[in-house]
Amino acid sequence: MPPALDAVKFHVESYVCDFTGRATLPVMSGFILDAASVHAHRRGFGLDKILNDGITWVLSRLSLEIYQYPVSSNDITVETWIEDVGRFFTQRCFRFVRNDGRTLGYARSIWAAINIDSRSPVNIPEWRPDLKDYILRDNKCPIAKMEKIPPVNSTEPVMSYSVRYSDIDINRHMNSMKYIEHVVNVFDLQTFKEKIIGKFEIVYLQEGRFSDRMKLYRENLPDGENIIDTKRDGESVCRSRIIWKPLNHPER
Amino acid sequence: MPPALDAVKFHVESYVCDFTGRATLPVMSGFILDAASVHAHRRGFGLDKILNDGITWVLSRLSLEIYQYPVSSNDITVETWIEDVGRFFTQRCFRFVRNDGRTLGYARSIWAAINIDSRSPVNIPEWRPDLKDYILRDNKCPIAKMEKIPPVNSTEPVMSYSVRYSDIDINRHMNSMKYIEHVVNVFDLQTFKEKIIGKFEIVYLQEGRFSDRMKLYRENLPDGENIIDTKRDGESVCRSRIIWKPLNHPER
Repeated sequence: MPPALDAVKFHVESYVCDFTGRATLPVMSGFILDAASVHAHRRGFGLDKILNDGITWVLSRLSLEIYQYPVSSNDITVETWIEDVGRFFTQRCFRFVRNDGRTLGYARSIWAAINIDSRSPVNIPEWRPDLKDYILRDNKCPIAKMEKIPPVNSTEPVMSYSVRYSDIDINRHMNSMKYIEHVVNVFDLQTFKEKIIGKFEIVYLQEGRFSDRMKLYRENLPDGENIIDTKRDGESVCRSRIIWKPLNHPER
Repeated sequence: MPPALDAVKFHVESYVCDFTGRATLPVMSGFILDAASVHAHRRGFGLDKILNDGITWVLSRLSLEIYQYPVSSNDITVETWIEDVGRFFTQRCFRFVRNDGRTLGYARSIWAAINIDSRSPVNIPEWRPDLKDYILRDNKCPIAKMEKIPPVNSTEPVMSYSVRYSDIDINRHMNSMKYIEHVVNVFDLQTFKEKIIGKFEIVYLQEGRFSDRMKLYRENLPDGENIIDTKRDGESVCRSRIIWKPLNHPER
């Protein structure tokens, strides 16, 4: 049996960096999906395998805390492990480590397994009792369990987009990374020049589909916190909370 | 001295695939940029190095011919080599190989080196006489030299977008991959269900910048060929030609 924890290596190419030379939040989220995918694949519950059973993994919530973003040419490792398996959700954690040993941040994610056709949730321990063998409860992920993200009540969208070909993933719904890419696009370059996204949380509430028209609503809270609500026909499809940190904030 | 040819490995993760399970054209272009970046880095003319001299590489033209797209979980290798070094441009070629040895396609690219501040082209053989040591003229790239892509004269855009944070790269202009992503977004899912982009050519004419408003114009030519012209204020920023192939077209 493979060990419970996997460590997946990435090289940060210059072309995935933003104008400041740092890897972007969508890219960091991509590393997470990639590491999760490798971990699941090596243990026999990757998409390539479970799609044959008519089942797919769906990301329900994701929260990242990043102390320092890797920059162009950095080699980083993303450690990932399963913290818990519930009836309908699994908790998967991540640690970003630079190759000099420095911890760059952590992430926590919650996944559901759903039936491809009915889109209804699958009872995970009944479907795959072997998943619990990989639980690593003692590995520390310092990110607190996510709190509710309140809706934004503004009626004036700050941005809108149509869901297009490159937003749609292999599950035929909107790619979870792409929501994040559109969310960060609400901000201008000046914001990213002065600060970094120190904490990011997103909750996925509905599945986005091709040609959906999404409108983004923004709320500015004290202490440099933003809520971005992505809505379709007035209903939230996903909501995210962004906590900005000064560029050189003390690292953990 | 490292050999002239480099072979860079990639694993096609499910989350970079489109709804048909195939890697998308922007992802294939990303592999190209990545392989070029690794090749240049290993030979001392990567961005990390030349940015210190105040110089950057700019992609001027790219053409891809893809016989078969890799699918989720495929392992592929991208071979890359320099075919020629001219005064102001270098020709770099690529071959996509699946791990069972099958050639999936080729690409040909033309790069300029420009001064970061003045944006003026650098005389490459004067600046880096060592580049010619890596020329591999005899390695066969079956893609013909690119012909001119004519402008589209339609006055009715089929799509438009604003250049946002995630479109901007480390050079502070629009990421060359992102133009391609927006171009393929002109087409609906049905098109990608029935056929694949067998050949794609793009020529970059101007640099896109943050908050630019881009409008895409489309021309449908016989034999399933499309020209997509990306314009800003009525002037072409980049132009691309797409040649569609039936899904199971005979491979080369």
